[in-house]
Amino acid sequence: MSSSRQTPLSSNPAGDHESTVTVLGLGPMGRALAGAFVAAGVRTTVWNRTPGRDRELIEQGATGAASAAEAVAASPLTVVCLVNYDATDAVLRQEPVTAALKGRALVNLSADIPGRARDTGRWAAEHGIAYLDGAIMTPAATIGTPRSVFLYSGPEELYEAQRPVLDALGGSHTRLGADIGRAAAFDIALLDLFWTSMAGYTHALALAGAEGVTPRELAPFAQGIGAILPPLFEEFAKDAESGRYSGEGNPLTSAVSTMTHVVHASEAHGIDAGIMRSIEGLARRTVALGHGADGFSRIAEVLGRWSGAATGTASSRS
Amino acid sequence: MSSSRQTPLSSNPAGDHESTVTVLGLGPMGRALAGAFVAAGVRTTVWNRTPGRDRELIEQGATGAASAAEAVAASPLTVVCLVNYDATDAVLRQEPVTAALKGRALVNLSADIPGRARDTGRWAAEHGIAYLDGAIMTPAATIGTPRSVFLYSGPEELYEAQRPVLDALGGSHTRLGADIGRAAAFDIALLDLFWTSMAGYTHALALAGAEGVTPRELAPFAQGIGAILPPLFEEFAKDAESGRYSGEGNPLTSAVSTMTHVVHASEAHGIDAGIMRSIEGLARRTVALGHGADGFSRIAEVLGRWSGAATGTASSRS
Repeated sequence: MSSSRQTPLSSNPAGDHESTVTVLGLGPMGRALAGAFVAAGVRTTVWNRTPGRDRELIEQGATGAASAAEAVAASPLTVVCLVNYDATDAVLRQEPVTAALKGRALVNLSADIPGRARDTGRWAAEHGIAYLDGAIMTPAATIGTPRSVFLYSGPEELYEAQRPVLDALGGSHTRLGADIGRAAAFDIALLDLFWTSMAGYTHALALAGAEGVTPRELAPFAQGIGAILPPLFEEFAKDAESGRYSGEGNPLTSAVSTMTHVVHASEAHGIDAGIMRSIEGLARRTVALGHGADGFSRIAEVLGRWSGAATGTASSRS
Repeated sequence: MSSSRQTPLSSNPAGDHESTVTVLGLGPMGRALAGAFVAAGVRTTVWNRTPGRDRELIEQGATGAASAAEAVAASPLTVVCLVNYDATDAVLRQEPVTAALKGRALVNLSADIPGRARDTGRWAAEHGIAYLDGAIMTPAATIGTPRSVFLYSGPEELYEAQRPVLDALGGSHTRLGADIGRAAAFDIALLDLFWTSMAGYTHALALAGAEGVTPRELAPFAQGIGAILPPLFEEFAKDAESGRYSGEGNPLTSAVSTMTHVVHASEAHGIDAGIMRSIEGLARRTVALGHGADGFSRIAEVLGRWSGAATGTASSRS
């Protein structure tokens, strides 16, 4: 550790003080993270490849750094939040940044696939960097509020040591396990759910609009649909765990015809129905595989069949 | 009206009594509807093309009918719930059923596209049938409980007259307007949202499973995502109404890269990513149209552009 190292920090007369945390990457989410640290009274150093993004944060009390290496050297903990791991590699896997990270803690809150997180974990271990991978599950506006949700994976001791600083971000913080790719695995699955749901809603707005139903008219009923989803998520998880995909009340053979209605109604208005065509195709293939009397949850098992670990077998590994 | 007509009713010694409501179609939803009427003490006659489906209902107190015409003739109100309007046409648009419906009320709770509802409305008007179109927005298990949601469209007086019987089904009942296609328009848009969301979740279960994350582990976080959807639905509706699709906090250019992650992570496990490929394609086209700094809600406007009425203009028509 190099807590006594003096670093020449730019843009701030208090630059000869060490910071508690450094934030690399000042896109909307990075700015929200740095802003939450500053608002919680945590001494924060910030850096962004494109200059100028740090202005407002410095006004609020953050310390600006002239380079990524200088920013990293200012704090025992660096939090990085960039668009993906190509971007974090471009910043972190170069000297003098990698050397500056040696013996310090790095928490990567950028989003990417689990394989990239595991690769970064290996790189960090090779370079003596204490590494936690993380994922932010809620929008930038939630950071610093009780509504934010952070997921982490990596060594427990390291997580517990950094927890007091990370807690300044507000919200809930959960460590999912030692496998460094685990936070990204949850992240990617939850992003899958999130964007697919939001795509369903934007498509519903377009389809309703073509039928003369305004967004304002549709929204309260869409919120009603939103409210019935969480209990169904629980029910589907039980189906997938048990391998019993009960179609009682809504067998796939009935459900698929309503998907066809959505495709026909959309295309009759010239609206792209590619998403529902994909869903309908999955449902019809699942029926063709002999699961017509099962519920829609059977699709999770059919989708997973071709992967290394089907959902049904995953449960036996936990 | 023919309330004094004596009809020969089969399978029930009380068959010489008129019923209050007739239910045609005893699939899972039709059985739930008839069961809720019976449980609420409403005199109910039931019929299904395939015999035997009425056994349990008759044990509970319903009256079985030997034919659709006989069933229709038993009550001033017939509720029909079949898989789609091809099925309702096959039952209703034939003699003596059409003749039996003359002067009576018909509520069609089958699901189909708005055009089919309007076509059925015209047929009903030509044959002197008082017609309401409807849609059931919640699963069969909710029928008869406060959680069920029914939508209707058609003449207000007719709706008010039938409301006391329909209320026996429990839950919330909303008449959306005189345009007979309106309930189907809401239905189709909400089914679009529902199935797309559920497809996103089943896909997330499969993807998580391939990464060694069990359904039981993913479900609580998926429920967390489910909880943030309703306020976003409201926000997106405001975007679509105002024509301002703010990407502050999450511009489409950032969002699209997380969609790419889902596609790559899925396909790396051999999991079909057709749904997310469609969504990513829509997002990339929307960026290419110059909306990269906008939020995901812009996609609703872009999807609607090619339809007769884009969402933005629909609001000006209401």
